[in-house]
Amino acid sequence: MPKYRPVDAMKAPRFTGIGSFMRLPQVSDMAGVDAAILGIPFDTGVSYRIGGRFGPAAIREASRLLRPYHVEHEIEIFDHLSVVDAGDLSIVPGNIQASYQVMVDGLRPILESGVVPLVIGGDHAITLGELRAVAGRHGPVGLIDFDSHTDTWDSYWGERYTHGTWCRRAIEEGLIDTRRAVQLGIRGSLYGSEDRGGARALGLHLVPTEELLQRGIESVLAEVRQRIGAGPVFLTFDIDFVDPGFAPGTGTPEVGGPSSRDALRLVRGLRGIEFVGFDLVEVQPQYDSGEVTSLLAGTLLHEFLALIALCRRDRQGMPGRAPA
Amino acid sequence: MPKYRPVDAMKAPRFTGIGSFMRLPQVSDMAGVDAAILGIPFDTGVSYRIGGRFGPAAIREASRLLRPYHVEHEIEIFDHLSVVDAGDLSIVPGNIQASYQVMVDGLRPILESGVVPLVIGGDHAITLGELRAVAGRHGPVGLIDFDSHTDTWDSYWGERYTHGTWCRRAIEEGLIDTRRAVQLGIRGSLYGSEDRGGARALGLHLVPTEELLQRGIESVLAEVRQRIGAGPVFLTFDIDFVDPGFAPGTGTPEVGGPSSRDALRLVRGLRGIEFVGFDLVEVQPQYDSGEVTSLLAGTLLHEFLALIALCRRDRQGMPGRAPA
Amino acid sequence: MPKYRPVDAMKAPRFTGIGSFMRLPQVSDMAGVDAAILGIPFDTGVSYRIGGRFGPAAIREASRLLRPYHVEHEIEIFDHLSVVDAGDLSIVPGNIQASYQVMVDGLRPILESGVVPLVIGGDHAITLGELRAVAGRHGPVGLIDFDSHTDTWDSYWGERYTHGTWCRRAIEEGLIDTRRAVQLGIRGSLYGSEDRGGARALGLHLVPTEELLQRGIESVLAEVRQRIGAGPVFLTFDIDFVDPGFAPGTGTPEVGGPSSRDALRLVRGLRGIEFVGFDLVEVQPQYDSGEVTSLLAGTLLHEFLALIALCRRDRQGMPGRAPA
Amino acid sequence: MPKYRPVDAMKAPRFTGIGSFMRLPQVSDMAGVDAAILGIPFDTGVSYRIGGRFGPAAIREASRLLRPYHVEHEIEIFDHLSVVDAGDLSIVPGNIQASYQVMVDGLRPILESGVVPLVIGGDHAITLGELRAVAGRHGPVGLIDFDSHTDTWDSYWGERYTHGTWCRRAIEEGLIDTRRAVQLGIRGSLYGSEDRGGARALGLHLVPTEELLQRGIESVLAEVRQRIGAGPVFLTFDIDFVDPGFAPGTGTPEVGGPSSRDALRLVRGLRGIEFVGFDLVEVQPQYDSGEVTSLLAGTLLHEFLALIALCRRDRQGMPGRAPA
Amino acid sequence: MPKYRPVDAMKAPRFTGIGSFMRLPQVSDMAGVDAAILGIPFDTGVSYRIGGRFGPAAIREASRLLRPYHVEHEIEIFDHLSVVDAGDLSIVPGNIQASYQVMVDGLRPILESGVVPLVIGGDHAITLGELRAVAGRHGPVGLIDFDSHTDTWDSYWGERYTHGTWCRRAIEEGLIDTRRAVQLGIRGSLYGSEDRGGARALGLHLVPTEELLQRGIESVLAEVRQRIGAGPVFLTFDIDFVDPGFAPGTGTPEVGGPSSRDALRLVRGLRGIEFVGFDLVEVQPQYDSGEVTSLLAGTLLHEFLALIALCRRDRQGMPGRAPA
Amino acid sequence: MPKYRPVDAMKAPRFTGIGSFMRLPQVSDMAGVDAAILGIPFDTGVSYRIGGRFGPAAIREASRLLRPYHVEHEIEIFDHLSVVDAGDLSIVPGNIQASYQVMVDGLRPILESGVVPLVIGGDHAITLGELRAVAGRHGPVGLIDFDSHTDTWDSYWGERYTHGTWCRRAIEEGLIDTRRAVQLGIRGSLYGSEDRGGARALGLHLVPTEELLQRGIESVLAEVRQRIGAGPVFLTFDIDFVDPGFAPGTGTPEVGGPSSRDALRLVRGLRGIEFVGFDLVEVQPQYDSGEVTSLLAGTLLHEFLALIALCRRDRQGMPGRAPA
Repeated sequence: MPKYRPVDAMKAPRFTGIGSFMRLPQVSDMAGVDAAILGIPFDTGVSYRIGGRFGPAAIREASRLLRPYHVEHEIEIFDHLSVVDAGDLSIVPGNIQASYQVMVDGLRPILESGVVPLVIGGDHAITLGELRAVAGRHGPVGLIDFDSHTDTWDSYWGERYTHGTWCRRAIEEGLIDTRRAVQLGIRGSLYGSEDRGGARALGLHLVPTEELLQRGIESVLAEVRQRIGAGPVFLTFDIDFVDPGFAPGTGTPEVGGPSSRDALRLVRGLRGIEFVGFDLVEVQPQYDSGEVTSLLAGTLLHEFLALIALCRRDRQGMPGRAPA
Repeated sequence: MPKYRPVDAMKAPRFTGIGSFMRLPQVSDMAGVDAAILGIPFDTGVSYRIGGRFGPAAIREASRLLRPYHVEHEIEIFDHLSVVDAGDLSIVPGNIQASYQVMVDGLRPILESGVVPLVIGGDHAITLGELRAVAGRHGPVGLIDFDSHTDTWDSYWGERYTHGTWCRRAIEEGLIDTRRAVQLGIRGSLYGSEDRGGARALGLHLVPTEELLQRGIESVLAEVRQRIGAGPVFLTFDIDFVDPGFAPGTGTPEVGGPSSRDALRLVRGLRGIEFVGFDLVEVQPQYDSGEVTSLLAGTLLHEFLALIALCRRDRQGMPGRAPA
Repeated sequence: MPKYRPVDAMKAPRFTGIGSFMRLPQVSDMAGVDAAILGIPFDTGVSYRIGGRFGPAAIREASRLLRPYHVEHEIEIFDHLSVVDAGDLSIVPGNIQASYQVMVDGLRPILESGVVPLVIGGDHAITLGELRAVAGRHGPVGLIDFDSHTDTWDSYWGERYTHGTWCRRAIEEGLIDTRRAVQLGIRGSLYGSEDRGGARALGLHLVPTEELLQRGIESVLAEVRQRIGAGPVFLTFDIDFVDPGFAPGTGTPEVGGPSSRDALRLVRGLRGIEFVGFDLVEVQPQYDSGEVTSLLAGTLLHEFLALIALCRRDRQGMPGRAPA
Repeated sequence: MPKYRPVDAMKAPRFTGIGSFMRLPQVSDMAGVDAAILGIPFDTGVSYRIGGRFGPAAIREASRLLRPYHVEHEIEIFDHLSVVDAGDLSIVPGNIQASYQVMVDGLRPILESGVVPLVIGGDHAITLGELRAVAGRHGPVGLIDFDSHTDTWDSYWGERYTHGTWCRRAIEEGLIDTRRAVQLGIRGSLYGSEDRGGARALGLHLVPTEELLQRGIESVLAEVRQRIGAGPVFLTFDIDFVDPGFAPGTGTPEVGGPSSRDALRLVRGLRGIEFVGFDLVEVQPQYDSGEVTSLLAGTLLHEFLALIALCRRDRQGMPGRAPA
Repeated sequence: MPKYRPVDAMKAPRFTGIGSFMRLPQVSDMAGVDAAILGIPFDTGVSYRIGGRFGPAAIREASRLLRPYHVEHEIEIFDHLSVVDAGDLSIVPGNIQASYQVMVDGLRPILESGVVPLVIGGDHAITLGELRAVAGRHGPVGLIDFDSHTDTWDSYWGERYTHGTWCRRAIEEGLIDTRRAVQLGIRGSLYGSEDRGGARALGLHLVPTEELLQRGIESVLAEVRQRIGAGPVFLTFDIDFVDPGFAPGTGTPEVGGPSSRDALRLVRGLRGIEFVGFDLVEVQPQYDSGEVTSLLAGTLLHEFLALIALCRRDRQGMPGRAPA
Repeated sequence: MPKYRPVDAMKAPRFTGIGSFMRLPQVSDMAGVDAAILGIPFDTGVSYRIGGRFGPAAIREASRLLRPYHVEHEIEIFDHLSVVDAGDLSIVPGNIQASYQVMVDGLRPILESGVVPLVIGGDHAITLGELRAVAGRHGPVGLIDFDSHTDTWDSYWGERYTHGTWCRRAIEEGLIDTRRAVQLGIRGSLYGSEDRGGARALGLHLVPTEELLQRGIESVLAEVRQRIGAGPVFLTFDIDFVDPGFAPGTGTPEVGGPSSRDALRLVRGLRGIEFVGFDLVEVQPQYDSGEVTSLLAGTLLHEFLALIALCRRDRQGMPGRAPA
């Protein structure tokens, strides 16, 4: 049996206990661990609203509601997966370069142990730090990016490392295999016509929100799976992919987006892909209401765990992990 | 003409007056009454967030916005129905057994007068109390349960009477005719694989959210009507059936659910069924925002009234009620 | 090149500067202006919740997020359009007649300069004041009214000028060419069966929410375009057209409505119509959460600007404006 | 024993029941009544924030917390006083003249029955309507006005009847005996030096906040009692008298004010004065948080009831009321 | 040096890490521990608002702001005290008797290890459970109770164990040495004149809010210290002692109370008393705003820690603890 | 007469118009200007909560309530002072060094024109940038610092420029004449005993909150005036000086502080000092409620304007400004 699993809600009501993600054990030693939740509460990279530093705490609180069995996939996640909450990285607020180093240093031992990290942001700039660590382990990886923005601007006010430029930097640094990269959900006004073109020029395959919803989820999933193919993949999910009616607690919301259910269906459709890491970014609880955004974020992380558990059950082995 | 109807908004602005439901007369004598709003502000049965004791007050406030004519059904509700607000039952917070007795005692005279009760919760545990009273009058009844959870667990921490076990208890007590029972909207993570199976083993027919939305509302309605057939039916609506983007003010929200409009369309499709009682449960105004949840709850109660009015108009007689 | 455009977000972060709409220049001289944002913070006309006087300020704040390029239309709005924020009219709270005079006096010079006004309300009663000015310039105009209410009641408590009666008054005053008038989105309970019939008796063409969503947006757009035909048109958008899950910050919300995306798609489909004025009304920020309503309202105004820019680009000339 | 008293909290939890003030009987017939709560949800008179139309509903909800025994005065209020909630007047929003007529017509029968009205606003403009009714019964009355503003401006934008001018109008109409009138709490910035001088020129005795708090409550109370002397007195309490730290839910807050406790001590010190009416105005629940403002407002009304009960007990007879 | 201390804020920003109280180690083994934070998220005992089950989580989050050095006492708390966060007890919501057993069982080993528990509620009913455990170890103890209510009612609706009756039960059970018991802060309306008298008849010494603030803090402190004398003492702090302007997030607020600073000064003045346990109860974060109530609660717990640290430093030994 | 003054509230209701501070003219040319409001929405310097980038916008909105006449000082501010709103500086979020350069460059021309800047933050780190500019014009200046923290730490996580270190840096850079420097309001827990000592070692004169409130405002003011003496002085006001009951909207609140009124009285007592600049920092509107913090901040800026106006009236000349 897997070594670590959440506290049993039938023994202790879900509102009790100090709030790790899903009330998982708080463990930093990666022995016997398959997947690890890791908070990166860095938010200096934003261009508008700010406050993602409290994202991990809020999502952990909301995750108390989540239960171990995944209905649609029909899987007992923790019968197949040993999961811990590895706490937060001690990033340096206000200093993105120092913080990137903290991220790489913090993720390396997790990745080297063959553990799949599930990172809670923080703003989207952290994905560059994560990809540096991931590519250090796996080489350039496939990317599935749920986002209403391309994040391929070159700089803001002279700053080259921000939540709007991380994707361009990651491509420039060779961390992403752009032939295996898809961005889903782009919508909303842009700074100029070159924005979307620029993302495409970098080799990204874009599926804007309107195309996504008009073609239908099944059609888009087929295309995503075809492009992503085999090999290691990183999934990054910016909560602003979802319409602000369902996810108000974020920094640069764009109206007219997919629903929560659309998001869940898309993620569920990624079953079988070899994921080596995930993140969920841009939750700003200060703008949330009734925890709806944090609960959605926690549920998406739960979906990610289910994807890993399915892989493990189906293939009798985790991607990137040597047999115990 | 019906004896009781709301205050006329053309005579007194809707924000004036002490807030009974839809500003209906506050009456406890059931003579000349066809349907009665009744608050049961009991919330001891919950397993996570709490606060439904203020649900009736919040829904009454929000219901000021509702008007007497139902557009889609094209009916002047109060030309066919005499409706009152019968106030709240004086349940005993913290004591579920004593409160069940209050519920049975409070509902009996209403039911015996042939009045259709529309109960505002409170948490879902109250439905057991209501069903005891309803079955005492009508025998085992059909059940239409809108809910994102099956509520068929056996116990929590040794407690057998909670908002997550009422449905199992009701079946055990023979209050529900399970051949005529449907649960709509199940979704979200579960404690284990046995949860959904357990509900089915009890004889419940489940239509999970994904099936509901993929098959489409018309298809599901046809199935519901076929299963429910003729005879008395109780409708219980847990507001967490609806996605938290539309109904954040509840205790155990599950993302990825139907919209408000989906809910309205489903309820409207139940025209012609012989309803002997309704409830609307699990609104927790502390987690609401801009009254959206309370307004949705009030609108659903308005839909229930329209269903009764339609029956009365169509059949020239109310279910379970002797001619005046 | 157009004379006026927003502050460049690449030079000054979007949260800096005093918040005019989209950080446009604050200009009252209409020379060299194609379109002007104008606040009319009048809210005495409401029948239930109140507070639209702070609508213009809230929408201006939220509009900081909007960027100049419109993705779906593929147009650089401000390469084709010179736009300013003309500030607010100094209406007289509590005195609707005096305020109507302020509106007519304030809009006349804008319209006479051939500038297209985009008005931010305020409650829906202001549309009568705007239509008086618009009809004074253009004669009776076509009307596209996004709204969950018909606003064709005759009076409230003896008051003939309110947010629920403006449309009847406008027709009585001959300001609208009812053959070219469409109301989209009617839903929710009514005071009586005569309400909807009354609107139709006035010559309005109604497309209720249920019909709109069941027929589909493309079908309805075709009908709208056919009815509206050629000639000057005024577009009024009551934010309560959209479901309160997406737009909670309003005065008389009706659940079960279209989504934000539905609204955007409908507006985008109006390309090519000769609009001579727009308004966006009934935002009440006191009931909003996380600015979602204000951001939606600002985005709709951005869509209106795109419609004008498209016309100008496509036809090489603005409706109702003499060549410079 | 008095005829009417609140529901017993030992029989029905305080959160149950439809929310009249303190869960008092809802009665319009004034026979056997000593004091009556009356809502006047009129808010057209404001100059800045708006929303007092929901003040009565919010204060009634918060008043569920209040209990019948007054500790500091050591009196069982309802052993000496028969109190009812007479509901709301159906004022006409947007029309101050029509609404004044509703107020005079609505208060007259209450006053003529010798009942002391305790009015819940609504904005401060309503006090003029109340004073017309009161003076119609008692002649010019003494006035104790708790307020951070003098409300003696002549007009706003041509409007002579507003929440900032009612006091000047009342003096001009001869409703107040200015020799027996005191304003407590004036503070904050003014439109000009003439504002405070103007109030004094009208004959009002002002005790600004700074003087009030520096001299001390006992000293000021002595002065108030000396000036007020014998004869009928009306007490009006604008919640903005209290610092917004304690009462954020109001329309024109002024920082640097007295605390809640200061307010309670001042009101308690008015024991023995012959009050013929009270009001509590300018609560705007949209700006409140955690009901603190509404609870303070309800508590002040409870204090007013205690003052009347004390009079009745001490003098064996109510002011202005014939023996039964 | 003490074994356990908080995470160093100079190494990891205070918003990082999973939120134990003050980011103390999460430890259940009491070896080497001087004081332990313990959450008891039980809230079934309330009579009005509910939600204290989320009190411990909210106070832990807010406690991130607290630093180790206490300025007024000039003490490095954690140089003298080894403190841990022992997590929450798994109480049974809805079942007060079962939960009392959990409390006694959970506190016994802590007390037997000579550790001082600092309990975070939950509602005030939990204090009875704590006192049973404390008296089991120390015999009847002195009591200092900060509260705006006496909590000496006999029962509510037949329920004898509630947040309003715990103190009477504790006296009846012989857990409190009433000669050494003081209640500070009583104010607000009561159910009847017998309430305050009843508390005094039980032997409690009451210092109502008005007396407390008029006599002054120094005078009251002297009296408290004189009455409490030597021997073990339990301190219970109901957050509603403080005015709702400073502590809105609670269940039965009473306006007109002491300020936060008054509370801090009173607690600081209790230096030198032999405290064997503390609790902080009745925080309901659902009604809080900007975390002000939770931060105040956390700061009071910090003050309690300082009192223990002072004792230890001054006496070279902790009350009730055997030398290591 | 002064050249610039606010819009007349008697001509345009205060809620109309685009929200500059007090609706002052938006002017960047300093000719004819005596004092200028300037926003510096920089918030990268914080150590805990973040969001001050929206401080200037929120304070400007709240400042609509302020009127031109100052009651306690009996002065028509704008009869003596020409004031403008100079907008915001385009700082670079995330880059403190670049932003300091923007601050120095932006303030230099204002100071060189003899205009007194009143800066709205932003976090307290900006004060270092301002002092560099001020000292560049005036040499080392006196400092009056209202704050609950000393802000004299050396660094956080290796970062030397933060909102907790600016004061140490300013002293090291020789920008402050420490013989003429006073810090008022220090309170709350510290990282260690060296914190307060360190501040004193730097030469700062500290008056902690407890000393301030126990000695009384008059006594402290006398001491401040004696230490400050003659010569140019900069006043910095961190809103967390005030208790979070009155000012919840801030980043590192400390309970137990002075009231709003205490703050106003202290500032009013500084009449006659030669102020060459002011700032008001650390408002975070995301944590505010009902705008109470923003209104307090705006009122303090209004007090600062009154201090300048008094100087000008009393001395017939402004500090540091050549006669026109």
